[in-house]
Amino acid sequence: MNPLEIPEIVIKRLPLYLRTLDSLAAQGRTVTSSQEMGDRLGISSTQIRKDLSYFGEFGKQGTGYDIAYLRDQLQQVLQVSERWNVALVGAGDLGRAILRYGGFEHGGFTIAAVLDKDKKKIGRQIGQLTVLDVATLPQTIDTHDIRIAIIAVPACEAQEVANALVDSGVRAILCYAPVSLQLPAHVQVHYIDPVIGLQSMTYYLSRSERGT
Amino acid sequence: MNPLEIPEIVIKRLPLYLRTLDSLAAQGRTVTSSQEMGDRLGISSTQIRKDLSYFGEFGKQGTGYDIAYLRDQLQQVLQVSERWNVALVGAGDLGRAILRYGGFEHGGFTIAAVLDKDKKKIGRQIGQLTVLDVATLPQTIDTHDIRIAIIAVPACEAQEVANALVDSGVRAILCYAPVSLQLPAHVQVHYIDPVIGLQSMTYYLSRSERGT
Repeated sequence: MNPLEIPEIVIKRLPLYLRTLDSLAAQGRTVTSSQEMGDRLGISSTQIRKDLSYFGEFGKQGTGYDIAYLRDQLQQVLQVSERWNVALVGAGDLGRAILRYGGFEHGGFTIAAVLDKDKKKIGRQIGQLTVLDVATLPQTIDTHDIRIAIIAVPACEAQEVANALVDSGVRAILCYAPVSLQLPAHVQVHYIDPVIGLQSMTYYLSRSERGT
Repeated sequence: MNPLEIPEIVIKRLPLYLRTLDSLAAQGRTVTSSQEMGDRLGISSTQIRKDLSYFGEFGKQGTGYDIAYLRDQLQQVLQVSERWNVALVGAGDLGRAILRYGGFEHGGFTIAAVLDKDKKKIGRQIGQLTVLDVATLPQTIDTHDIRIAIIAVPACEAQEVANALVDSGVRAILCYAPVSLQLPAHVQVHYIDPVIGLQSMTYYLSRSERGT
C-alpha cells in the first residue's frame, strides 16, 4: 500500500502504541494484546488491530503481540529506528525545560542545536549545547542536516521563526507557541497544546466537582 | 445517550474541533464544513460528522456549521463554558513557561495556584501568583476548589506529587514529566509528550531527507 494512502489519523496513533509498548517493556513484559493496549489508551482493541493491519501481520489470534518485535516494526514504520537531528529555537525558560526533557534520545531524536536571538542568551552553555545566534540558522540547519525543528519562542515571534526554518529546509515543526502557523503544504506542524489536554479530561469531571 | 458510553477517542477529538473553530472564528469566519475542518486536522469529514452526531444535529446538508453555535455547544459538552481552577506543581523553568502560556483562560482554565518544594522558589512572585510551599497542597486545593492539576516537576518526583494531588481530591492531571504515573482508576491523566508529536511527523519525511 502507498504510505500516503494510509489515513493520517492512523499514523498519529502509532506513536501512542509505541509508547505503550515501551512502557510495557520497561515493566519487563514481553507479550501484550490489542485488548491490553486498548485499555491503556482508551482505544478499542478492534481499532488497534485494524490500524496495525495496514502495516502487516504482527500478532496471532490467542497469543497476542511480541512486544520487542512490534516495537521494532513500529519504529521502522515511523522511521525512528535511526536518529533524527532536531533544531530548537528559543533558549528561554521553555527552551531550557525542553533541553532537559529526558525522552528525546529514546524516541529517536537528538537536539543538535539550540538558537536564540537574545544577545544575552547567545553563547551560553545549556547542557552539552552552546546557544547559537538565530542569524546562523541556515548554516546550522545545513551543517547538522536538520529537517525537524522545535519552536519555543513567544507567540508573536513564532511565524517569523517558522518562515526562516522552512526557508532553510525544515519540513516538520513541533510548535509550543499558542498560534496557528501559516506554512506551505509540504511542511508538517504539530502543536503542543496543554489546553487540548485539559479539555480532553473535563468532559469526564462531573458538574458537582466543578471549581468556582 | 449515557455520556460514558461515547467512545473516549471521540471525546479526545472534540478539543481539536473546538480549537479549529476558534482559529476559524479568529479569522472572521462564521460558517464552516466538516470537509474544511477535516482538511485542517487530517481527519475525514465522515469521521467528524459521525463524532458530532453523538451530541446532536449541528449542521445542515449544504449550508455547513454555524461556527459560533457549534463552539458554544462543544464548550458545553466539554464543560469548559465555565471556568476551572487549576493547580500547577513545579515553579522551575517549565512551570514558569506554563504560567506564561497564553491559552489557558480562553480555553476555560485559570491557574489559581503554583506550588514548589524548593525553599528558594517559595514566596517568589510569578506574574499574578506567589509560589506556595507544596506542603500546603491540601489546603490550597481545598481553598480554590481545585479538581485539575498540572505536574511540571522532574520525572523522579512526579509520582510523589501525583499521590499528594490525588489524596487532596484532584481528579485530572496534565503531566509534563516523561513518566507513566500509577493512579487510581477514578483519576484521569493526560501526558504532554513532545516525542509523540515528533514521531507523528517522521512517518511523512522521506528517507532521502533523513539527517545523519
